[in-house]
Amino acid sequence: MHMDVRAYIEAHRDEFLSSLKEWLAIPSISADPAHHGDVRRSARWLADHLSATGFPTVELWETPGLPAVFAEWPAADPAAPTVLVYGHHDVQPVDPLEEWETRPFEPTERGTSLFARGASDDKGQVLFHALGVRAALAASGADAPPVTIKLLVEGEEESGSVHFAELLAANRDRLACDVAVISDTTMWAADTPSMCVGMRGVTDVEISLYGPDRDLHSGSFGGAVPNPLKAMSDLLSGMHDDDNRVAIPGFYDGVVEASEEERALIGRLPFDEQEWLATAASRAVWGEKGYSTLERIWLRPTAEINGMWGGHTGAGGKTIVPRSAHAKVSFRLVPGQEPLRIQECVRAFVEANTPDGLRVETEFGGGVRACASDLSSGALKAARAAMERAFGTQVLFTREGGSGPEADIADILGAPLVFVAVGLDEDRIHAPNEKVEVPLLLKGAESAAYLWEELASAGR
Amino acid sequence: MHMDVRAYIEAHRDEFLSSLKEWLAIPSISADPAHHGDVRRSARWLADHLSATGFPTVELWETPGLPAVFAEWPAADPAAPTVLVYGHHDVQPVDPLEEWETRPFEPTERGTSLFARGASDDKGQVLFHALGVRAALAASGADAPPVTIKLLVEGEEESGSVHFAELLAANRDRLACDVAVISDTTMWAADTPSMCVGMRGVTDVEISLYGPDRDLHSGSFGGAVPNPLKAMSDLLSGMHDDDNRVAIPGFYDGVVEASEEERALIGRLPFDEQEWLATAASRAVWGEKGYSTLERIWLRPTAEINGMWGGHTGAGGKTIVPRSAHAKVSFRLVPGQEPLRIQECVRAFVEANTPDGLRVETEFGGGVRACASDLSSGALKAARAAMERAFGTQVLFTREGGSGPEADIADILGAPLVFVAVGLDEDRIHAPNEKVEVPLLLKGAESAAYLWEELASAGR
Repeated sequence: MHMDVRAYIEAHRDEFLSSLKEWLAIPSISADPAHHGDVRRSARWLADHLSATGFPTVELWETPGLPAVFAEWPAADPAAPTVLVYGHHDVQPVDPLEEWETRPFEPTERGTSLFARGASDDKGQVLFHALGVRAALAASGADAPPVTIKLLVEGEEESGSVHFAELLAANRDRLACDVAVISDTTMWAADTPSMCVGMRGVTDVEISLYGPDRDLHSGSFGGAVPNPLKAMSDLLSGMHDDDNRVAIPGFYDGVVEASEEERALIGRLPFDEQEWLATAASRAVWGEKGYSTLERIWLRPTAEINGMWGGHTGAGGKTIVPRSAHAKVSFRLVPGQEPLRIQECVRAFVEANTPDGLRVETEFGGGVRACASDLSSGALKAARAAMERAFGTQVLFTREGGSGPEADIADILGAPLVFVAVGLDEDRIHAPNEKVEVPLLLKGAESAAYLWEELASAGR
Repeated sequence: MHMDVRAYIEAHRDEFLSSLKEWLAIPSISADPAHHGDVRRSARWLADHLSATGFPTVELWETPGLPAVFAEWPAADPAAPTVLVYGHHDVQPVDPLEEWETRPFEPTERGTSLFARGASDDKGQVLFHALGVRAALAASGADAPPVTIKLLVEGEEESGSVHFAELLAANRDRLACDVAVISDTTMWAADTPSMCVGMRGVTDVEISLYGPDRDLHSGSFGGAVPNPLKAMSDLLSGMHDDDNRVAIPGFYDGVVEASEEERALIGRLPFDEQEWLATAASRAVWGEKGYSTLERIWLRPTAEINGMWGGHTGAGGKTIVPRSAHAKVSFRLVPGQEPLRIQECVRAFVEANTPDGLRVETEFGGGVRACASDLSSGALKAARAAMERAFGTQVLFTREGGSGPEADIADILGAPLVFVAVGLDEDRIHAPNEKVEVPLLLKGAESAAYLWEELASAGR
């Protein structure tokens, strides 16, 4: 049976890639209202594909925002466990467009890589599950999978999953499962398969400071009225202390520190800082004093300025005191940090640091709690076994610094999480020239095929 | 004769406004390369107008950038003094365009105001001289003015006058004069005519900080690599100390402090801070500790952030560590501060405050030295007398916080400067809805008409 799964997947490689390219050609950017029609098209494409795959139940689930896709394929044995697979079909914006070597929505293979926005995050990783279930059925000769498979693929992940918790709560019964499989993360390296066992949460804010009612001539008024860009620089600069810790009062309250044992395990990973810097295309490390780079991105909360603007940003000079200044800041969260409480801390900090004569507005995005797997659960062991069969080598544990709405799945559905994914840090997700490694997508499909079987044996 | 000048100007009001509107319709934005053709059209329009006015010599003076207009009308008496009038025919950019009540290049009268980009700064104030010389000739019945009048109207003032010093030096002989009249400033108020006796200089820099070679996913890399926007916020925040003094080492070296006598005179001006704040449309004053608002804008050097941008500035969120951060900063200078030395101080400060792992670029604009009039000169007394005749009331002294290339005129041509101008602080120069008061432009023309006569009597 082992050979059969792999052989099936190899035989259907071209068909799989052809479907994936069709899907990647749809620019489903959820953060941009101009592309909301495309996000809807993307949902319909996936629904059609899952129907063609054989899922007896396929539905578009509308939200007040953009639709998710739900599919279900019941196990022949009603006593078999139920597995919920989570992914998303929306993608990040593509600017700066001029830095793409090939156009973001014209999927292009170069070597073993497939380039397109969403190739790795997350369409490629959603689609390998469809191939995996077909491979599992082909190998077993059965008409139905050994576990009940549910897929939930949302359309608002890249714009903060604002309606996802609501969707989960409203459909709690139909989504009931024994384990949730998350396929929206990365492995340690192409030759070092690993499973993620925790993710940071996130929340974000757009801060606007308003000064004079119009831009002022800096000759007539400069040096004598508050400058919103100066005030914003002071405010953002004050968000970290000299040890690069976040200086917002209350920010670290309740943080569940990682155990010394876990920090020791992280220290044993074959981490090459120079190689990591090359992947980051950065020239230096930076961060909170007292922590290693991996600890900084996996175990520690952050405040990060994602964008900032104000005043004259065009060609040439313009000697003004600008009327306003704006910044987008996001916060990575760790277990123990409730997004809504962090938002209150940020609001209070911003207001306390707005100088006299300026008006401040804060607009908060959604919040996602951090999450972590139970390392002793049967589901985690089954997933690890499936990946080890596919890759033929030991699978290690990591965490991820990024976040999806995984914590909501764990909280609202009461299901343990396991992460099965094959993205790489160098896939350039969220940046120009995003790609995915095709051989790893096929390993992902193979892992999925074994996963149903391992989970069926493990119970839950 | 007094009545004749005024009557001539009243009789030619509509013709004057019609010409001015024609000129204002040309969008001569020198800071925007897309408008350089319009700057050239503006120069040709002015040259034609001055020829029609009767100037025997009218020339376009090319520079490596945009052209200036030169005109000359010799006095009948070769022993009469020579007066050089300085102004500029280029204008500021117009963004944000949506905030204009009428379009910036469709001049519109509302009440006593004429709205258009450049109405006050500086086309209106250049053009009143042409009306003034015609009124003086009509009143005297002479064929030539009582002093030799030279006009030099440059086309790069709003983009830093980068070629102006060169132009002055190359044409030193033809520009030789006994006094330079500057018409590019403001009066204290419509009912309180005044003369400017000093101006701050300026220089500016665009600072770019480059971090990772591409935008990074802040989940994968956030908190562990230097963020260029964070570094820029730190750098700009550190540009002032807690007393709001500029914290760039060397910045205040050599500053010629204003005398206690001058500070006392400034303290006697009828300054209403609440009214000034209303004019500024600002909700608070701010500035260097130990100085009044007027001292801050007239006597003290500043560092002002004019624009700033980096990362994601569009709709929605984008959780990135941005690859770069940019800021435009300008520095108002006072006597004793050489622009090139200040640029070196800024460069050193920026480099010293760029963290490891970021690359910095600084691009400096032109520099303009501060200047001040000699309060005891005959030329200053003549100009004051001319304005007092036109306005029928005492003319006070002020300074201006803004700057043109006036210091170069004084230095290169060796001529004393006097400022005759009728703009107002509330004209919104450099901002949307720029306007000029038509009655003040006509008083400006009348002042100019008397000025030739007063200067002829004063010698120099």
